[in-house]
Amino acid sequence: MEHGTVILRANLVLPISHDPLPDGEVVVEHGRIVEVRPRSTLAGDEVLEFGDAIVMPGLINGHSHLEYTALRGWNDRVPFFEWIRGLVSLKAKCPAELWLPSAMLGAAELIASGVTFVSDNTDSGASAEALARLGLRGRVYQEVFGVETEPDDATILRELDAKLDALRQTLARYEASDRIGLGVSPHAIYTVRDSLMRALRQYAREQNLPLSIHASESSEEVALARSGSGSFAEMFRERGINYLHPRVPPIEYLYNAGILASDVQLVHATRAEPREIDMMARTKVSVAHCPRSNARLLTGIAPVYAMRRQGIPVVVGTDGAVSAGSLDIWEEVRFAALAQRAASYAAQPSWRDWIGMLTLEAAKAFGVDAHIGSLEAGKRADMVVVRTTRPAFSGVSDPYAALVLLARSEDVALTMVDGHILYRDGKHTELDVDALRHKVEEMTRHALAEHPT
Amino acid sequence: MEHGTVILRANLVLPISHDPLPDGEVVVEHGRIVEVRPRSTLAGDEVLEFGDAIVMPGLINGHSHLEYTALRGWNDRVPFFEWIRGLVSLKAKCPAELWLPSAMLGAAELIASGVTFVSDNTDSGASAEALARLGLRGRVYQEVFGVETEPDDATILRELDAKLDALRQTLARYEASDRIGLGVSPHAIYTVRDSLMRALRQYAREQNLPLSIHASESSEEVALARSGSGSFAEMFRERGINYLHPRVPPIEYLYNAGILASDVQLVHATRAEPREIDMMARTKVSVAHCPRSNARLLTGIAPVYAMRRQGIPVVVGTDGAVSAGSLDIWEEVRFAALAQRAASYAAQPSWRDWIGMLTLEAAKAFGVDAHIGSLEAGKRADMVVVRTTRPAFSGVSDPYAALVLLARSEDVALTMVDGHILYRDGKHTELDVDALRHKVEEMTRHALAEHPT
Repeated sequence: MEHGTVILRANLVLPISHDPLPDGEVVVEHGRIVEVRPRSTLAGDEVLEFGDAIVMPGLINGHSHLEYTALRGWNDRVPFFEWIRGLVSLKAKCPAELWLPSAMLGAAELIASGVTFVSDNTDSGASAEALARLGLRGRVYQEVFGVETEPDDATILRELDAKLDALRQTLARYEASDRIGLGVSPHAIYTVRDSLMRALRQYAREQNLPLSIHASESSEEVALARSGSGSFAEMFRERGINYLHPRVPPIEYLYNAGILASDVQLVHATRAEPREIDMMARTKVSVAHCPRSNARLLTGIAPVYAMRRQGIPVVVGTDGAVSAGSLDIWEEVRFAALAQRAASYAAQPSWRDWIGMLTLEAAKAFGVDAHIGSLEAGKRADMVVVRTTRPAFSGVSDPYAALVLLARSEDVALTMVDGHILYRDGKHTELDVDALRHKVEEMTRHALAEHPT
Repeated sequence: MEHGTVILRANLVLPISHDPLPDGEVVVEHGRIVEVRPRSTLAGDEVLEFGDAIVMPGLINGHSHLEYTALRGWNDRVPFFEWIRGLVSLKAKCPAELWLPSAMLGAAELIASGVTFVSDNTDSGASAEALARLGLRGRVYQEVFGVETEPDDATILRELDAKLDALRQTLARYEASDRIGLGVSPHAIYTVRDSLMRALRQYAREQNLPLSIHASESSEEVALARSGSGSFAEMFRERGINYLHPRVPPIEYLYNAGILASDVQLVHATRAEPREIDMMARTKVSVAHCPRSNARLLTGIAPVYAMRRQGIPVVVGTDGAVSAGSLDIWEEVRFAALAQRAASYAAQPSWRDWIGMLTLEAAKAFGVDAHIGSLEAGKRADMVVVRTTRPAFSGVSDPYAALVLLARSEDVALTMVDGHILYRDGKHTELDVDALRHKVEEMTRHALAEHPT
């Protein structure tokens, strides 16, 4: 299909870069969009007619941990510190072979909700192969941890280098090197010591790799940075870890250490303080906002409205299923929009802004807006079709409001990447999800059933 | 079907009043539950086998305005004051004949999400007939307005009396008097003057009718009550309305006026202050919590955790589709649970608490727990079956967490009231929803398309 001409036709085309086009169609050739135009009378096998539906750019999931999909339902601990300790403990019990099928199961759930690009932070590296095999576009940040004295920075950097080489080989094997970019994720200030954080910044600059850092997610993390107190600080003392407390909040510390720049994604920034928001704006970092995960783990609601007022690019991420509960980007953006209104008492971001944050603005934040993020001639054919046939859509004329307030995975009629149809009418075109689910459940139960946390 | 024996069988039965029962079944005869028991080997036409699914009590929607379903999408104004002025203006343009089909369309959407009991506040009275015709159980509060000098209290009471008589006749005509109870809704302190509020309290006591009052929903309402300032106060001055400002917040005013008692439902209480929460607990009022509507209209997040700690019964309501966006009770409870965690930094109410608030606790709040709210022998057969087959349910062993975090209308396999199957596998058994939707859209467009607000 990707080598012929395909026309996607519907009662509404939403290019994002331009005004909505009623009764429109998008012409795809060789994996690219060649034209966005009013409905034509062309007929034939290559015309996909969707009727009451919205054709729009594929959705961008700004942050995830796909490899942990298998752990959903196994960790209901709170607050954040207990949750992340539970996660570490669960991971330790699982075999390495679990992470690839687990990441694939998560990627399948994303595709079913209309996601075509995902930014994923991975410890095992499995998500690169998962995205490659499932045909998704994305960014894969290799996670790095190191808060104890050993191994030293040089050893960790050598290991990182080797892991990135392995990821490059994997991507090349699946001919996915153009589709999937790499990056480095110094996990967080409570898992990466100061010297290593600086070394990773230097390494990433030399290698021309972007960074993704969990920052100012929880009050425990803020307490650690500000005053060397709280759960993380106590754990470090118990374990004899000599942690350098910066005595400023996490993002201010990263700023002072020269880590922040336009190639940095800060994940969460839930507790970002006004002065830190200034620093974020000044250094042009972007933010991945994962509000369901934040709510679930009792870390609050990120100041998205304030960040955006200062021009900070904000993308929406599902985070992992193990915290958010599901990998449905529609549920994420709906919660994001309503929670932000509840927290800020302002109708900001607007419905249209949120859809922009799932598409073109996110593409800009990831530096890929030359290729995706809007329906424009010359861009890659990454698209999603959302049916608006349920009675709940009755009367809603603003398509952006309809998408934010009403759309669900069940409304997704088609997900396309590079002109390939990955998902259509409730079915993955090249993946047996039931078999994959069964395999993941068996492996997870086997590893964990005797020792649930 | 309601006169024979029907068995609903699934991999999990959730009685609410008792622990979850794996591999169970519920036996229904003559519209009542006669037994909840482990899976039997009985076979035949009367056995409905659902496999990977949860059989549970029908869901209780604690507050709605079904007649406004047709107006969804027509009023995106904020803040609250602008929104409610927009609603009044839209209503004025619509023909009286719109409200019944509009309420029926809303009721159909509720049934599709598993709701079997709805508490609805109605101006036109149409929701009583809508619930009666569609086979739902519920409570219908007749709304009363009166803030200008005329008509006087006595006239308004006479009109109310006549409206309630008409509703009783409607219910009797559909043989729904046992299923649907009546109440009175003095709409709010900014639409009902002090003398009328007191007269309605007296009337309701004499007539043994419960009350439902929108209270402390918005900051505009609080400003009006506290200091005679803000948008409502300005509007009253412009219109020459001599409003008696109580100089205390709304719920404290209602307390001082002797309005509050255990037969009173306060809707929203979003801005309730600690002293008002004490008064609510002391007088044993219940609260209808509609968090999506509150978020949408920029009124904040109600202090549900604080209310429940003081023993105040809280039910979950979708409010109208015109504010919440949809009438999906699962979306409401999911937003409620996550938003409350985000606002209170506590894992309270628990997942189990929220499901209780949709079932048995809500039945108690409405005084109908002798008949519904749990799966127990002798109770009415009001049930919903929720499929747990989607991959997202993979690994989630806690059924309460699964329902709150993951369940959707699309998972509802069956909705039953009094042993009647109202909805099954995506279809209403006795209603042509498409025809109804078409009719409502036509009527609404005809009334509003020329003058959208």
